[in-house]
Amino acid sequence: MAGEQSTGTFVRVAGETDELRERFGARIESLVELGEAAAPSLPGAWTPEAGAAPRRTAEVTLSWPLHNFGPSLPNLLATVAGNLWELKPFSGMRLLDLTLPPEFLARYRGPQFGIAGTRRLTAVEGRPLIGTIVKPSVGLSPAATAQRVAEIAAAGIDFVKDDELQADGPHCPFEERLRAVMAVLDRHADRTGMRVMYAINITGDLDEMLRRHEQVAAAGNTCVMVSLNSVGLPALAALRAQCQVAIHGHRNGWGLLGRSPAIGMSFIAWQKLWRLAGIDHVHVNGLRNKFCESDESVIASARECLTPMFPAPHPGCEVMPVFSSGQSALQAPDTYRALGSLDLIHACGGGIMGHPGGIAAGVSSLRQGWEAAVAGIPLDDYARGHLELAQTLAAFGR
Amino acid sequence: MAGEQSTGTFVRVAGETDELRERFGARIESLVELGEAAAPSLPGAWTPEAGAAPRRTAEVTLSWPLHNFGPSLPNLLATVAGNLWELKPFSGMRLLDLTLPPEFLARYRGPQFGIAGTRRLTAVEGRPLIGTIVKPSVGLSPAATAQRVAEIAAAGIDFVKDDELQADGPHCPFEERLRAVMAVLDRHADRTGMRVMYAINITGDLDEMLRRHEQVAAAGNTCVMVSLNSVGLPALAALRAQCQVAIHGHRNGWGLLGRSPAIGMSFIAWQKLWRLAGIDHVHVNGLRNKFCESDESVIASARECLTPMFPAPHPGCEVMPVFSSGQSALQAPDTYRALGSLDLIHACGGGIMGHPGGIAAGVSSLRQGWEAAVAGIPLDDYARGHLELAQTLAAFGR
Repeated sequence: MAGEQSTGTFVRVAGETDELRERFGARIESLVELGEAAAPSLPGAWTPEAGAAPRRTAEVTLSWPLHNFGPSLPNLLATVAGNLWELKPFSGMRLLDLTLPPEFLARYRGPQFGIAGTRRLTAVEGRPLIGTIVKPSVGLSPAATAQRVAEIAAAGIDFVKDDELQADGPHCPFEERLRAVMAVLDRHADRTGMRVMYAINITGDLDEMLRRHEQVAAAGNTCVMVSLNSVGLPALAALRAQCQVAIHGHRNGWGLLGRSPAIGMSFIAWQKLWRLAGIDHVHVNGLRNKFCESDESVIASARECLTPMFPAPHPGCEVMPVFSSGQSALQAPDTYRALGSLDLIHACGGGIMGHPGGIAAGVSSLRQGWEAAVAGIPLDDYARGHLELAQTLAAFGR
Repeated sequence: MAGEQSTGTFVRVAGETDELRERFGARIESLVELGEAAAPSLPGAWTPEAGAAPRRTAEVTLSWPLHNFGPSLPNLLATVAGNLWELKPFSGMRLLDLTLPPEFLARYRGPQFGIAGTRRLTAVEGRPLIGTIVKPSVGLSPAATAQRVAEIAAAGIDFVKDDELQADGPHCPFEERLRAVMAVLDRHADRTGMRVMYAINITGDLDEMLRRHEQVAAAGNTCVMVSLNSVGLPALAALRAQCQVAIHGHRNGWGLLGRSPAIGMSFIAWQKLWRLAGIDHVHVNGLRNKFCESDESVIASARECLTPMFPAPHPGCEVMPVFSSGQSALQAPDTYRALGSLDLIHACGGGIMGHPGGIAAGVSSLRQGWEAAVAGIPLDDYARGHLELAQTLAAFGR
């Protein structure tokens, strides 16, 4: 692993001197054996000629000299997530974490708004941002989208986002949708003084994303959404270099990288790349979600978003975790207890849009859920004086 | 699968009318059941409440209306390779193929040089391009790289490439390497009339790649190499829009997407995305390679590169497959027999650089191997009148 991804190849070649290996070879910092595996995790692995030799598993920490590739995320990827996955001696491999030196901050900008900036843009303090998603995912016209957003804004929401399937389809062109929704949100801001943050999906080719971002900023919106895995790190970094608004990172496609125990990457490693490249928010799934992820994994992901990537005095590049998927006020206390922070966006679809009292009641129930969480009062108790929370418990409770 | 990735979500929401589903829903074109699975392939899958309900497997063909997302590769990805991977009802899923309508050609340029253009740039006809890789991967200075390339060029090679680990490290800066290598290749061209194609690795952030491409074109080189998975489709498309030389697509990182039978993407599907975005060559591994891939899979990949993506009169976007990894003249006959084409780059490291007669003998042995392959003469027979091939057989033969 160390050899193939630094100076070496399958065999030692002419010119790979000891001095060159010393200066450019990857180092094994630690290697903790984790026991033997009964069978290879993936096909194609080399089988020892001896036949019955044991198949060992281990957690390995490697380090590379920065001068091998410089502080470049794409070239870092070629090193730590390149040919490695296809090596025959391994029948399974996951990238568990990455520690990057602060030199990367000379080339990448990190989050522009992050947690404090997102709070400033939305004027929400002392509680999570309460958010929701425009549904149906696909099929609403710009006017119908704006109508849906008008209802959502009137309900007192802090944050609303497009679905990742909705970017610039011919039935809902980006510019028309932006115009229609901003007219609604401007009216709402005039009326209430509150600027709802709209994570409008600008995912596309780079020229499209840059043009759409200009239009978003010119329209006075405060956020753009990007499907990270669909666009890649260089496009995100290029957007960040010109960006005037918060970047809401959607992680769709993540399962392909993260779901298999036999091959892939941890969210811990993955999100560091994107934070450095410049996102301000990133999806982490939610407790008791409708996807396949455990609660422990969700909380570990969210906690990592709030943990500095670099030691002081360097910026920590913290970003706001976005909890979503099957969320309602019911998850507020457990989320708060497990995360120990209010710095998150709680994005609830059904929990708000499907609330029996309507959308405004849905938003109220979320605020009440978080009030209870912060006060340490059980939801059932707090619901006695709070109708909308009581309705959530009745409708969605266990 | 069809619902979640089009109009639907976990539950039917208000506004998801029958008319909307009819216009925007994904369709199941076919569903072929493949039997039951004894156990879930991946963790996190939903377990039927009933307990012992069978876990079924199937090959499914879905279609989406183009107006859901328009001819946009990033938004296509969010649809066919997005949240799907995390859905609880599935305990495993692979994207096997993609058929795209020609409307995508209005937005993407496809290969600029492809097979015919690569042959024109190198003046190689009637046989594969013979290539090799600069090794050691990491650690050579620009001067040492140029010295290595000088030896390789003098040996009569058609094509030489950087290692994917070598892009712009501080010890081998891109501009210096380009300058040093081009001085060598220019002298070689002056002497011989032959322009060796040098796939210089420009992988980096977008501004870097565009600047490096300009320098490469200005220096008179005919090719740039990009680590595709490290940069993403929008960055590649942005490069292609300005590109004046052939784009050599390196697939490092591919194993993460392709190696697991439980989750991921076939090379067949993956390479279509990149061909449309504009690569001219793409790595397919090689027969009897040192990685974990079977020969059948390698040939299926290569054959796909030569198969039109769109029906005439649209361009087929064919690209040159690059065979590499443990290659020498030994694989020429089997490769030719299985592929039925000479349109490929045969990139041999040890088979050329480690040839007992030296590099020039290594290149000669490759040409002889392909002569034998085309003539249908067994290598052992052809080796009788061809010393360099005989040396290959003696050194690397079974």
